[in-house]
Amino acid sequence: MREALSEWRPRIDEEIARLLPRTLSAGDVAEQFGSPRFEYDEAALTAALTEPVWDLLDRGGKRWRPVLFLLAAEGFGGDPESLLPYAAIPEILHTGTIIVDDVEDGATLRRGEPAVHRKYGTDVALNAGNALYFVPLKVLTDDPGGLPAETRLRAFDMLTHELNRTHLGQGTDIRWHNGERVDMTEAEYLEMCACKTGCLGRIAARLAAIVTEQDEAAEAHVADYAESLSIAFQIADDVLDVEHTLDGDGDFGKAFGNDIREGKRTLMVIHAVQAASEPAAARLREILTADEASDKDVLDAIDILQATDSVEYARERALELAADARSHLDAVAMRDEQADQLAAFTEYVVEREI
Amino acid sequence: MREALSEWRPRIDEEIARLLPRTLSAGDVAEQFGSPRFEYDEAALTAALTEPVWDLLDRGGKRWRPVLFLLAAEGFGGDPESLLPYAAIPEILHTGTIIVDDVEDGATLRRGEPAVHRKYGTDVALNAGNALYFVPLKVLTDDPGGLPAETRLRAFDMLTHELNRTHLGQGTDIRWHNGERVDMTEAEYLEMCACKTGCLGRIAARLAAIVTEQDEAAEAHVADYAESLSIAFQIADDVLDVEHTLDGDGDFGKAFGNDIREGKRTLMVIHAVQAASEPAAARLREILTADEASDKDVLDAIDILQATDSVEYARERALELAADARSHLDAVAMRDEQADQLAAFTEYVVEREI
Repeated sequence: MREALSEWRPRIDEEIARLLPRTLSAGDVAEQFGSPRFEYDEAALTAALTEPVWDLLDRGGKRWRPVLFLLAAEGFGGDPESLLPYAAIPEILHTGTIIVDDVEDGATLRRGEPAVHRKYGTDVALNAGNALYFVPLKVLTDDPGGLPAETRLRAFDMLTHELNRTHLGQGTDIRWHNGERVDMTEAEYLEMCACKTGCLGRIAARLAAIVTEQDEAAEAHVADYAESLSIAFQIADDVLDVEHTLDGDGDFGKAFGNDIREGKRTLMVIHAVQAASEPAAARLREILTADEASDKDVLDAIDILQATDSVEYARERALELAADARSHLDAVAMRDEQADQLAAFTEYVVEREI
Repeated sequence: MREALSEWRPRIDEEIARLLPRTLSAGDVAEQFGSPRFEYDEAALTAALTEPVWDLLDRGGKRWRPVLFLLAAEGFGGDPESLLPYAAIPEILHTGTIIVDDVEDGATLRRGEPAVHRKYGTDVALNAGNALYFVPLKVLTDDPGGLPAETRLRAFDMLTHELNRTHLGQGTDIRWHNGERVDMTEAEYLEMCACKTGCLGRIAARLAAIVTEQDEAAEAHVADYAESLSIAFQIADDVLDVEHTLDGDGDFGKAFGNDIREGKRTLMVIHAVQAASEPAAARLREILTADEASDKDVLDAIDILQATDSVEYARERALELAADARSHLDAVAMRDEQADQLAAFTEYVVEREI
């Protein structure tokens, strides 16, 4: 699986660069976006679009969604070489969402460097991030796979559906962040993750089913695989934040209790609010909704998470979701080799290797 | 034309409310966005999405793009009653762009009240604005007009193309704003407007041609009509800003020389930089790229615009573009009544009545 990631990565970046060259000539702009009626300012477009986007892409990212797409497409009998242009779609969309999310969250860093909006300005970052919501849809129009009209339409309908749901998840998360409520249900939490994080995984998976013309049942299974995988990834990520804080005992650095300081409603927090004594739940609520949390607040919150076995609970749920993801692979007719590699994703994900 | 605007307005808002009810029940969310795998937090979604959007929609806006769509569709022989759901598409997209643009521009006011991000927070505003980029595409999936697959696909391809170009225009404008350059060509300026402002008009017009299954030539003419109309509108708007400043002689209020203070590269400015003496051009450049402009700076800039007849030049160009818009209506087979009403748009636009 690691091999698949490192093998495909340069090829995926080539596809992204075909759509969004690092430096745009007037000819590039015309080729990608149509001839101008008047005249493009290609230098302004390079500075406004492709420079900030490639700055972020070159910082890293594992490109696991494109590889998930390629493995699933090959598993369904497709030729990954000829379907490679479609692999750029989920990665470009993902890149757009992280640029925009960083503005929404007021983030300072991304992949170890200043967030795009800190480096290029909020205006440039937002416009570039939003452009990435539409640049990849062009692949469907360009139609490198020579797909039937019904299939291209099915892909557009799917993307519309999933990109709408992405914004439901992000909107719910933002409201929770900003509000006083800490008693959301586990079901509400999982739905938020399914929308916010799951939809981009679903896009990669469903696109693989669509471009290889699978039936709806197969598409639904591979979508649910990717969704459960993505939720498991999110929960494991949140668990890691707490574990880093525990490991770093006494090291009250920048990364100390990040999620608790931000008041993030994680599965651990939601579980602890329900499982804790009334005073402990009230204290946790107080810490999460405070404008600022002290180091002592963070330690108190983690004590409450530990007293209620909430970290363990979340870890168990992540493992269940990973198992659920694998069950959807078992339910679908797919070549063994690729099905095994996709199953391996679920283990890497909860071990946070990708 | 005014009658058409006021007659259709409540009907258009009903269509928007069908897609985005003012208050979302769990059933509404499931109906609009699919059943949840777990559970929606519909109260959070109402607060994050529909409240801020309806707050802005209820403040005003003439809904001229939906009416342009309905007139063009009827002109092409379509039934505006049955095509009404599609009229919501350009208005919802437009609403999304103004929410996001206000964040990008750091705007304080919109339609006489605090900009959405000032009232609801940048995170809520951005996510709601971005959601509006995908909510209207759902209409094509829902397919209220029972359109053939090829026609729906043609609409998705068209929207992808135009929404990509919208971000080229906005990106170019942002770069100009932030940079030192004032010597952009008129052709570069007109292209920026064609992309930034023209594409939303083109969407309304092309959608009318597509849902009524016109040929590509007719679609291109009505698109060019809408593009020229939109550019004329933009130029007229910029001229108005200078005229307000001249009319308000001595009243150095908030609206005094807005565009000049912001360093906006308008057609007037671009013309003046070319037509002015070297010292005057240098002075104009200094004012436009300054971090802050004094009242005297604004008056000096306007003196230079007047000395070079740049206001008159821009007004003439707006009239030419309005005439160009009408010529595209003449070139297309369309019912006279609707063609006349669409032609009337071009007059209202340059008189700034819509």
